[in-house]
Amino acid sequence: MQDQLKSDDFQFGIIGLGLIGGSIAKSLSANKFEVFAEDSNKSYFDEAIKDKALVGSLDEINESKDLILIICVPVSAHEDVFLKHSNLLNSAKLVTDCSSVKNSVLDDLVKSGLDSKNYVFSHPMAGSEKSGYLNSNEKLFEDKTCILMAGEATEESSLRLCKSLWQLLGSKISLIDLKDHDALLALTSHLPHLISFSLISTLAELNLDSNKIFSGGGLKDFTRIASSDVKMWKDIFSSNNENISNAIDKFVKKITLFKNYIVDNDLENIENFIEDAKNFRDKNL
Amino acid sequence: MQDQLKSDDFQFGIIGLGLIGGSIAKSLSANKFEVFAEDSNKSYFDEAIKDKALVGSLDEINESKDLILIICVPVSAHEDVFLKHSNLLNSAKLVTDCSSVKNSVLDDLVKSGLDSKNYVFSHPMAGSEKSGYLNSNEKLFEDKTCILMAGEATEESSLRLCKSLWQLLGSKISLIDLKDHDALLALTSHLPHLISFSLISTLAELNLDSNKIFSGGGLKDFTRIASSDVKMWKDIFSSNNENISNAIDKFVKKITLFKNYIVDNDLENIENFIEDAKNFRDKNL
Repeated sequence: MQDQLKSDDFQFGIIGLGLIGGSIAKSLSANKFEVFAEDSNKSYFDEAIKDKALVGSLDEINESKDLILIICVPVSAHEDVFLKHSNLLNSAKLVTDCSSVKNSVLDDLVKSGLDSKNYVFSHPMAGSEKSGYLNSNEKLFEDKTCILMAGEATEESSLRLCKSLWQLLGSKISLIDLKDHDALLALTSHLPHLISFSLISTLAELNLDSNKIFSGGGLKDFTRIASSDVKMWKDIFSSNNENISNAIDKFVKKITLFKNYIVDNDLENIENFIEDAKNFRDKNL
Repeated sequence: MQDQLKSDDFQFGIIGLGLIGGSIAKSLSANKFEVFAEDSNKSYFDEAIKDKALVGSLDEINESKDLILIICVPVSAHEDVFLKHSNLLNSAKLVTDCSSVKNSVLDDLVKSGLDSKNYVFSHPMAGSEKSGYLNSNEKLFEDKTCILMAGEATEESSLRLCKSLWQLLGSKISLIDLKDHDALLALTSHLPHLISFSLISTLAELNLDSNKIFSGGGLKDFTRIASSDVKMWKDIFSSNNENISNAIDKFVKKITLFKNYIVDNDLENIENFIEDAKNFRDKNL
């Protein structure tokens, strides 16, 4: 079965050349693969051609060679991609997306009526607060986790091919159930970002001079992720709103419990709360 | 007026050889000053002697030479230090503490009945999630902010001397009103830590396998401060509980507002909220 990645056998199409798509293009071309791409931002495409991360646009794909198609667009843009590129999606050996939210992508895929035997859901955990093609780099995925999920129709050979792709890019693979993804990521990724935005917003309201913010006390690192891309996060929050709302409720319940211990000066519970958190973090993160 | 720091003129006493006290001792001894110290943990003292960060214990201080005394103990230990070392405190040219909370230190100082003309409140913003003497290093304070505050009785010469001390250690000085410190730090330092502990506690409750936590999504950096020293933070939360309670209320109000925008799918307000936070962070932190 054909599931190893050799440059003689496969060519790549990438839709969206932001941080993720740009980094994939750079890494694949460094590995001698032919990469074709498109981006609504013409300057990203031109830069990528100049960088030799691409050999051309999607129109130039060679129809007689096996194609792997990687979709790297914001959550809400998948519906349009499925419509516009249905021919490429149907003919590709493997199609995968890199979206941070999956339920809405799945809905869009089902609605599109595309055959999805060749479709695997990917979520590379390799974001950065620096977005866009200009921040992309061929080592972005090295030693990062990439979550893979099969859909109902996904064939085993497509899943194996998708694993090979991310392993080629240097990632560790974690397989989970598609139905668990959005609730899990609401807690482990979307909630931290949302907290970071909310903390900064709390501080902004104080109208302090910059030199009174004292970012040394952990604040600078802690709020790094609040500098992330605005449109991407708007899209994530909006398309995963039910899970995120539940995650916020869980967190607010927890911080309110902790607040009550502090207000009551309940030293034993304050210490236990901190100690349990520290132990969990040191062990698991 | 004598407010420059030359090793011929001054000797140092340090009470508490944890991360902060140990780092001060290493930096001062590297600058050829004689440093005397004590710590309730005998092994810290022995290590510091071995490292040549100290020349001896507080008993060996030379009574005929000007002394600068630096208190580097947990918030709740100041009362005992003021009682036990009242003679040293009264005879020193300068006394300063490094506590993260000031109201309770001020109360303890007033209750002690000590003359406090020579007393300056310091707060070096140079913590780390790694605590204790073994993590101390002579460069800890370089390019960090140190907040200085005068008490009612503090003389101008003591404040100048304290500035010279922290500048010698490489810090930038920020002067604020003593009465503002605890409310300000509740928001800019204590709240981020408390949020970090609460977020980890929320995740811990899910009983996920470690490989399902996906720390790549910003979580690892974001929760670094949750690995901080347990007893120190218990002490801080307990001794600044009123300000911290207010800070939590402000933050919970903000995250609830954000949650409502998300639940309502109010895209304009979601985007504005994220954009304002990102702009504030990029400009001020």
